[in-house]
Amino acid sequence: MAPLPPKVPAGAAMTGNPHNMRTSPFYSHIAQSVGPVNIVTPAGQIGIRPDGSIPTQPTEQIQQALANLSRCLEAAGASVKDILKLTYYIVDYDHLDPRQRAPLLEFLGDHRPPSTLVPVPKLALPGIIFEIEVIAAIPQLPSERVDVVVVGAGLSGLQAAVDMQKAGLSVKVLEARDRVGGKTWSKPVHGSVCDVGAAWINDTNQSKMFALAKRYSLDLIEQNTKGKMIVDKGVGKLKAHPYGQLLSHEDDRAAIADIVRVRDIFEETCQKIDLRNPVTSGSAIRKDLDNITFEQWVRSQDCCEDALNALTIGTRAMLGVEPSEISALYFLDYCKSGGGYMQMRSDCKDGGQYLRIAQGTQSFSMGLASELAPDSLVLLSPVRRIVQKAGAVTVVSARGTFEASRVIVSVPTPLYKEISFEPSLPPEKLALAQETKLGDYCKMIVFYRKPWWREHDLCGLSQSSHGPFAVTRDSSVDGDGHFSLTCFVTGQPARDWMVLSPADRKKAVLEQIAKLFGPFAKVEEPVEVVEQIWRNEQWSQGCPCPVMGPGGLTKFEHVLRAPTGRLHFVGTETAYEWKGYMEGAVRSGERGAQEVLLALNKAKV
Amino acid sequence: MAPLPPKVPAGAAMTGNPHNMRTSPFYSHIAQSVGPVNIVTPAGQIGIRPDGSIPTQPTEQIQQALANLSRCLEAAGASVKDILKLTYYIVDYDHLDPRQRAPLLEFLGDHRPPSTLVPVPKLALPGIIFEIEVIAAIPQLPSERVDVVVVGAGLSGLQAAVDMQKAGLSVKVLEARDRVGGKTWSKPVHGSVCDVGAAWINDTNQSKMFALAKRYSLDLIEQNTKGKMIVDKGVGKLKAHPYGQLLSHEDDRAAIADIVRVRDIFEETCQKIDLRNPVTSGSAIRKDLDNITFEQWVRSQDCCEDALNALTIGTRAMLGVEPSEISALYFLDYCKSGGGYMQMRSDCKDGGQYLRIAQGTQSFSMGLASELAPDSLVLLSPVRRIVQKAGAVTVVSARGTFEASRVIVSVPTPLYKEISFEPSLPPEKLALAQETKLGDYCKMIVFYRKPWWREHDLCGLSQSSHGPFAVTRDSSVDGDGHFSLTCFVTGQPARDWMVLSPADRKKAVLEQIAKLFGPFAKVEEPVEVVEQIWRNEQWSQGCPCPVMGPGGLTKFEHVLRAPTGRLHFVGTETAYEWKGYMEGAVRSGERGAQEVLLALNKAKV
Repeated sequence: MAPLPPKVPAGAAMTGNPHNMRTSPFYSHIAQSVGPVNIVTPAGQIGIRPDGSIPTQPTEQIQQALANLSRCLEAAGASVKDILKLTYYIVDYDHLDPRQRAPLLEFLGDHRPPSTLVPVPKLALPGIIFEIEVIAAIPQLPSERVDVVVVGAGLSGLQAAVDMQKAGLSVKVLEARDRVGGKTWSKPVHGSVCDVGAAWINDTNQSKMFALAKRYSLDLIEQNTKGKMIVDKGVGKLKAHPYGQLLSHEDDRAAIADIVRVRDIFEETCQKIDLRNPVTSGSAIRKDLDNITFEQWVRSQDCCEDALNALTIGTRAMLGVEPSEISALYFLDYCKSGGGYMQMRSDCKDGGQYLRIAQGTQSFSMGLASELAPDSLVLLSPVRRIVQKAGAVTVVSARGTFEASRVIVSVPTPLYKEISFEPSLPPEKLALAQETKLGDYCKMIVFYRKPWWREHDLCGLSQSSHGPFAVTRDSSVDGDGHFSLTCFVTGQPARDWMVLSPADRKKAVLEQIAKLFGPFAKVEEPVEVVEQIWRNEQWSQGCPCPVMGPGGLTKFEHVLRAPTGRLHFVGTETAYEWKGYMEGAVRSGERGAQEVLLALNKAKV
Repeated sequence: MAPLPPKVPAGAAMTGNPHNMRTSPFYSHIAQSVGPVNIVTPAGQIGIRPDGSIPTQPTEQIQQALANLSRCLEAAGASVKDILKLTYYIVDYDHLDPRQRAPLLEFLGDHRPPSTLVPVPKLALPGIIFEIEVIAAIPQLPSERVDVVVVGAGLSGLQAAVDMQKAGLSVKVLEARDRVGGKTWSKPVHGSVCDVGAAWINDTNQSKMFALAKRYSLDLIEQNTKGKMIVDKGVGKLKAHPYGQLLSHEDDRAAIADIVRVRDIFEETCQKIDLRNPVTSGSAIRKDLDNITFEQWVRSQDCCEDALNALTIGTRAMLGVEPSEISALYFLDYCKSGGGYMQMRSDCKDGGQYLRIAQGTQSFSMGLASELAPDSLVLLSPVRRIVQKAGAVTVVSARGTFEASRVIVSVPTPLYKEISFEPSLPPEKLALAQETKLGDYCKMIVFYRKPWWREHDLCGLSQSSHGPFAVTRDSSVDGDGHFSLTCFVTGQPARDWMVLSPADRKKAVLEQIAKLFGPFAKVEEPVEVVEQIWRNEQWSQGCPCPVMGPGGLTKFEHVLRAPTGRLHFVGTETAYEWKGYMEGAVRSGERGAQEVLLALNKAKV
């Protein structure tokens, strides 16, 4: 039995109706806030997309306006249940055709705030037929003084909190989302779950994760590598060959040899990196490698285009970026943190993608959360302001203000900008926040009635340079009757794909599956598709790990983990081992807890 | 170096935008209040003027609506930065011609609250094309128990607070405005300041103010009396004569003689007043003088119209009222408090208008404020309610509620009505608040490139019965390259002038300057004009000192300063010496502090 998710806080808005008054199933006559609240007032929201376009179809426009409103509420730490009042303005209103009703009811769930409907001749922009505004009230917890506030209930923050509580400290964990887990997120689908974020551990060199899997009695599934994998043309010819081999036809033997040659040089260089000191590894100062992009490094090996393509699949699948966007040394160091490029990319024993979790990887986060003392965790409470004063830090979050002796900041470096630090973070931390970027990383998980690829001796792994996704993998949980291929849409192809309509995004992925798998198997119609675009997540803004461009490691290798006054910084990108992985997150959390315990003289000697 | 102004409190409204959403430079997508707040909801504001007229020019109408909104916020103790959300309604909206934008941005400064724009076919009144409503949230300070709350951070309140803190009491000063100083207000203009309120002290009989000037190292400027002053016809003929003399032409010698005769009787009567007991001065009970207006008293001297005109300039320039509006005894007592009519009106040594302050008179208030213990002063926090209970007084202000053993009320008597007293003030205090009135007192300060009047042997003083202003004076700060004439638009002429448009008000003043000075000098074009209308100030409602009509002193001479339970009352009108002047304010503050110290057994014996 996997750990249960922690409870989402109740809203402050009590709704009701006066006695003996005409009521409506669509709204309440009154709402009132109960207890201390913060007020949230989004701007009137219209159905404009992030790219500035406006859906012409009225229902779609209304849905877009509501989606925008959801984004605003989320960014403020408010939920639909916190809405006190809504007002909507409708152009060409026809009371016989209340087209706003269905999308509104879907948006509201079972909450029925009071509302006002205002028919208007037009709105601020031509073509806009609907605008909605709300007042929401976020209930405020009583102020509390604790030893430590942890900002973020991803794996690193939760691990730190658990460790510190075990050592006797009082801890408050403030999480922006309505769930724990950060980039571990297991969505329920048809009696199973699918991992839209982190998906794998292993049982050898990922000792922390394997221990947690045992601790929470999670069921482990070996990644399917039985049968052939598919490699698209551009990395040799389109072909299916046994997992782990690079069998080539006569006419692409040279290309394959070149790929292997460059890969081996990369692996060799990678293994020489000193993880504790990547820039000044051993006797060689590796600023030369930090000053060029990974693409420049690959090209400097005098290789064929296929070798670059093959390694491009690597940066895309591992970091959601192009080889031109990261420093060569950054990528070498990243790979070394997982034991090297070959190991990090491997789906086999000791590899980065060896074991999946039947209950989903979010079970790790829910497990850690379940170990916290009662009321330690506050969901839906983004931290707004961290004020360091003599003797204490004040942490202002959407649902309460807390005083602490120390604060652990467990958010990705590019998201430091979402918090107002007073005094300001030191210039080098600000530069770190500014200059590290999260990759574009999307998953489309395609569910089928049965694992048709296995019937044709395919393991489900495919690699491609043509189309939205770079990689697919079998993500089934056979015991649940859940059969799926997860398609990794990442890097530049993801950017081109994200701007498509939802229907076109799905079509493009299904077409690429057909193109890759069609020559080797009878591709079936999917029964369900789950899409996850990490760029659109207010509290992730990308995935899986903030990357550094040329010069980044030289500037930031020591800044990354440096405490600032009473603030400590954790997160998978700060790990020495398995950066970007759950293992790295948990290890960074342990390191953060240890720092705080030392600072507060609570560490075990 | 003049003392620095105290800090205005930060707003409660945090604004921002969700990640990856289309943003606008004109509004934010979200605002949320942080910490405990009070909510302010002004009515939708339209561009109607106080006289009920509506500007026909759209931009002017929008500006008037925003000015009205500013007044609402000010009256609630809210600032623009406290606005959480705004909604505006526009008739004949054209998205290609957003005429609301420029005035809105000017109104908002650098605050960008979320907004909703609602095009509408019409609004509540014909001709109205714009209406705006806001929700504002005023941050609330934690409740505190102090020894004394002082209501008002003008000179009297600040002096009282400083004295009480020096004696060891804990004091909270609650000020309605975003600044200290009340009617001392020095506005920055072109690298200098101009005093739109109180302007003069002297170094002999205003010992308190002179000591403060020394304490804050302020630079003193002797009022310019070199050269001739101008007297308009109606007080004899239009002429220029040396300051302090009343040289007359052949044809107005009789009028001048009559003026001098009546003035001398007035001065003689004045000198007999017992300031501690004006109604029962000496053996003569002076109810007879309190039962008539000053105009009736003048006319009873059987004088010519010119004599009444001359003394009318006196009541206008000194109190902003007509001789028919004040009791004769009130005016006699008022003049006696400054050493007599001649001394109070004098611009020379010992006179009421002898020394100006290069840094501005607000420096006195900022100096006193700078002596307060940290966090003693709360700006933008009008007091709403004063509740006397057993053992304590609760003071509810816009930014916080405080408990105190004693309260010093340092607001002008007519403004007592802005505070809800529980239990109600005694009937005689209510009558005092009801029956004392503040004068109509405006300044128009006209800046020139050079002091052209001096080149023609004029000191800048003029007196006139014809036109908006009664008096002008040289208000230059030569060291700053600041050359100005300050025109005193007061009494009935002020009432006629205030209803004009800003352009017409300026025109009328410049025309009067030309008419008065033109015959004697080459009048130059102004480079800047600063206008101050004290009637429009929410927290003054007039200037300089509340006056009493017939019977007022008889009723109120002892009521004025009488404490009520735990409440004590200060303010320049409660002084025995230099009523209506800064000296009176400071002396009243000292008296109030002494009363409280005695009550709390803290007075030095």
